[in-house]
Amino acid sequence: MLVVSDVSVAFKSLLLALFLSTFPLISSCGTTGRSAGLTPRLAHCVASPVSTIVCSTALGLTGTKAGGAKKAGMAVRGPLLKDELDIVIPTIRDLAFLEQWRPYLSPYHLIIVQDGDPTKKIHVPEGYDYELYNRNDINRILGPKASCISFKDSACRCFGFMMSKKKYIFTIDDDCWVAKDPSGHEINALEQHITNLLSPSTPFFFNTLYDPYRAGADFVRGYPFSMREGVATAISHGLWLNVPDYDAPTQLVKPSEKNTRFVDAVMTIPKGTLFPMCGMNLAFDREMIGAAMYFGLMGDGQPIGRYDDMWAGWCCKVICDHLGFGVKTGLPYIHHSKASNPFVNLKKEYKGIFWQEEIIPFFQQVVLPKEAVTVEQCYIELAKQVGEKLNGLDPYFTKLSEAMVTWIEAWTELSGTAKKSDATSNGSVN
Amino acid sequence: MLVVSDVSVAFKSLLLALFLSTFPLISSCGTTGRSAGLTPRLAHCVASPVSTIVCSTALGLTGTKAGGAKKAGMAVRGPLLKDELDIVIPTIRDLAFLEQWRPYLSPYHLIIVQDGDPTKKIHVPEGYDYELYNRNDINRILGPKASCISFKDSACRCFGFMMSKKKYIFTIDDDCWVAKDPSGHEINALEQHITNLLSPSTPFFFNTLYDPYRAGADFVRGYPFSMREGVATAISHGLWLNVPDYDAPTQLVKPSEKNTRFVDAVMTIPKGTLFPMCGMNLAFDREMIGAAMYFGLMGDGQPIGRYDDMWAGWCCKVICDHLGFGVKTGLPYIHHSKASNPFVNLKKEYKGIFWQEEIIPFFQQVVLPKEAVTVEQCYIELAKQVGEKLNGLDPYFTKLSEAMVTWIEAWTELSGTAKKSDATSNGSVN
Repeated sequence: MLVVSDVSVAFKSLLLALFLSTFPLISSCGTTGRSAGLTPRLAHCVASPVSTIVCSTALGLTGTKAGGAKKAGMAVRGPLLKDELDIVIPTIRDLAFLEQWRPYLSPYHLIIVQDGDPTKKIHVPEGYDYELYNRNDINRILGPKASCISFKDSACRCFGFMMSKKKYIFTIDDDCWVAKDPSGHEINALEQHITNLLSPSTPFFFNTLYDPYRAGADFVRGYPFSMREGVATAISHGLWLNVPDYDAPTQLVKPSEKNTRFVDAVMTIPKGTLFPMCGMNLAFDREMIGAAMYFGLMGDGQPIGRYDDMWAGWCCKVICDHLGFGVKTGLPYIHHSKASNPFVNLKKEYKGIFWQEEIIPFFQQVVLPKEAVTVEQCYIELAKQVGEKLNGLDPYFTKLSEAMVTWIEAWTELSGTAKKSDATSNGSVN
Repeated sequence: MLVVSDVSVAFKSLLLALFLSTFPLISSCGTTGRSAGLTPRLAHCVASPVSTIVCSTALGLTGTKAGGAKKAGMAVRGPLLKDELDIVIPTIRDLAFLEQWRPYLSPYHLIIVQDGDPTKKIHVPEGYDYELYNRNDINRILGPKASCISFKDSACRCFGFMMSKKKYIFTIDDDCWVAKDPSGHEINALEQHITNLLSPSTPFFFNTLYDPYRAGADFVRGYPFSMREGVATAISHGLWLNVPDYDAPTQLVKPSEKNTRFVDAVMTIPKGTLFPMCGMNLAFDREMIGAAMYFGLMGDGQPIGRYDDMWAGWCCKVICDHLGFGVKTGLPYIHHSKASNPFVNLKKEYKGIFWQEEIIPFFQQVVLPKEAVTVEQCYIELAKQVGEKLNGLDPYFTKLSEAMVTWIEAWTELSGTAKKSDATSNGSVN
C-alpha cells in the first residue's frame, strides 16, 4: 500500500512537471517555482518543511556558537545573520533587560542611543558588544544636522539606524522582555524577525492562510500563480503580549487590559493599506528602507511625542508600496512589561490625536512620482509634499518637512563615503 | 491600596470624560464612543468583556432552547439569530455530516440545493427543518432564467441564496465537520460567523492587534479615532483545519499537507485588497451583499469549475469596497475532511489558472460609478465591464456577463414582489 502510494505521488509529480513544462507561464511562477526569485539561501529556507533547521544549515552556520537560540526539541545553533545585523536600543536607564535576552541577543552588536542627560552612566550587562551614543556624540557627529534627531524621546533611536553599517536592524525597547508561546517556550523574537525578513511578502493579494511561506502553509486556491514569488520584505513588525500598545485615551479607559491572545500568524500588510507601526519590537532591512526609517521631531522642544514610530511607519509604508517592497506584521511577540503613564502620554499625544485625522488621509492619497526609484528620492519627495500639504495643519509640519530633508542629507553622508572611524562613539566597544 | 487604585481609575475616567467633552471630534468617535454606530444590541455585545454571554442576553435569547451551543464553562444558550438566518447546503449525497453539527445547526432552517440527478433521494437527518430544491425545481421556478444557475457544480448553491428570505446566510459544504480549538473544545462555527457579522469591520486602516472589537483587544496607538466606529460587515469568511483549500497543482505537489495551525484571529480584509473567497465555510448578510453572491457559470456545459466561489468573492469584494461594507476572514475554523481529487480538479481549474492572471488585474482596476449605490446596480455595471473587458480572453466571459444580468433579474424578481408560495420546493418542510 505504501509502495502504491509512493508511485502515486511520483506519478503526480511527473504529471505536474509535464503540465508545468507545457505551460511556461505557470512553470516560471508556479507553486514549485515560487522560490525562484529568492536568493539561493532563502530558497532553501523556504522550500523545506523543516525550514528553521535547514535555514541554519543553508546559511552556513555551525550550530556550535554559544548563545544561540534554544527551542524545545531543537539543537542549539548559531545566531542567524550575526555579522549582518545590529540591535538598536534607545534608553535613559540601565539595560538590565538584556540579561534576560542574553541567549538570543548577546551574539549581536548593540548600538545604544542614550537619551536625556549625557552625563549619566548607562550600565550595559557584561559580555555584550556595543557602541553607545549620547547627545554630545550626536551633536559632534552630525553638527548642525543634529537638529533632525529628537531629544528626550525614544525617536532618538533613528540615530542608531544611521550609525549602523549593517544590512539589518532590530530595534527593541528596554521594557520589553522575552515572551512565551502558549506551550510555555521562550520566543526568540529576533530569530522570527529574521525569518520574516528573509522570506518574501505578498502585498498584492491576500492569502487567507496567512504567510504562505511558513512550513505547513501555502497559497490557497484562487491565488494567482504569477504572484506567488512574492516580493522582498523590508519590514517585520512584531507584537506585544501583556501590556498592549494603546494610546492614552484607551489606556485611561482600560487601565488594566492585557493582551493575552497569542495569534500564531505572520502576514503581509497589503499594498495601499496603512498601519500603526510600533517601534517597540521592530526589524527592517536597513539597505532597503533604512533611509525612510526616520522617527521625526518629537519630545524636547516639539509639540508632540509618541508619534515617532507612527510617522516612520506611514512614511515607510507608502514608500514600500511605491517601490514594491513588503511589510509584515504578526509574530514575534515580546512581553511588554509596563504601561507608560497615560497622563504623561495624553500630554504628548494630545495634538497628534487631532493631527492624525488629517495626516492619515494625506498618506492614503499621497502619490510618489515614477521618477522616484530610490528610498532617498521617495523620501525627499514625501518631505516636499508634507511641507506643502500639511503645513496648514500647524507650522510644525514645515519644520518636520525640513528635518526630513536634513535626515536624508545626514543619512547620505554617513552611509556614503564617510568612514566609520570619522564618527566614533564614546561607548565601550568590547 | 485597592481603594487608591479605584479612586485613581475613577479620576482617570473623569479626566477622560472632561477631555472628550472638550473635544467633540474625539468624543463622537473615540474609544468610549466606538460602538455609537452599532445597533443597540450590537453595542451591548461589543462593549462587554464577556461579550459572548451578554450577546445572547442582549439579543433576548432565553438559553433554554435545546441544541444551543455548548462551551466548557459556559451555560447552554439559545441559538443566535434563529429566525434571521438560513443555512444553504449544496449536495449530491446524504447529509450525514449534519449529525455531528446537530447541537449547533439543528435550530436553523436549511435550504438544500441538490446537485446532479434530480431523481436521487437525498437523506436529511431527522429533526432538521429544511427545504430542498433539485434541478427540476430550479427550472420550474426560474424558467428560462434557470440558465444562470450552474449544474453539476457546487456553484448551484447560490440558488439557495436566492430562495432564502432571511437576512443572513451560512453556507457550508457537506464534507466539513466540527473542528476543535487547541484546548480540545468543539468550535461552534456558526456562532463565530454571527459574531463576525454583527460586529463592525475596519477596512480603511489595519489594526495590528487584529479585530479591535474582540474581548481583550482594542485599537492600537496611532489608529485614527474617526475610523474606530468601523463599518457594517457584509461577509464572514471562515477557514479550514485539516485539508486546506489548495488548487490542483498545489494538491499534486503537496498531497499530504494538512493545515494544523489554529490562528486565533479575525481580521478585516483591507479596502482595495482582493482575496480568494472559499465557499466551504462562509456567512454573509444577504440583505447587504446577497445580490452579488452569484457563483457564476461552472460545471456542466461550462469550460471551467472550482472558480465559482472565487468569482463571487472577487465581485463581492469590489462591490463591498465601493459601497463601504466590511469583509472579514479568519475564525471560525471547520474540519475539512477530504481533499477532492487533484486530477479531476486540474481538469476543472485548467483554464481558470490561466484566466485568473487577467481576471485579477481586471478586478484590481475596476472602478464602479458613483451612481451605483445599490448592490444590484453595482453588479449590473460589473457585468457590463466583464462583457467588455474580459471577452477577449474567451467567449465564455460574454456568456458569463449575460448570466450575471440574468441572475440579477431573477434575484430581483424573487426578492421583490414574488411570494414565497409561488416558488415552493419539493423538499419536506418539517
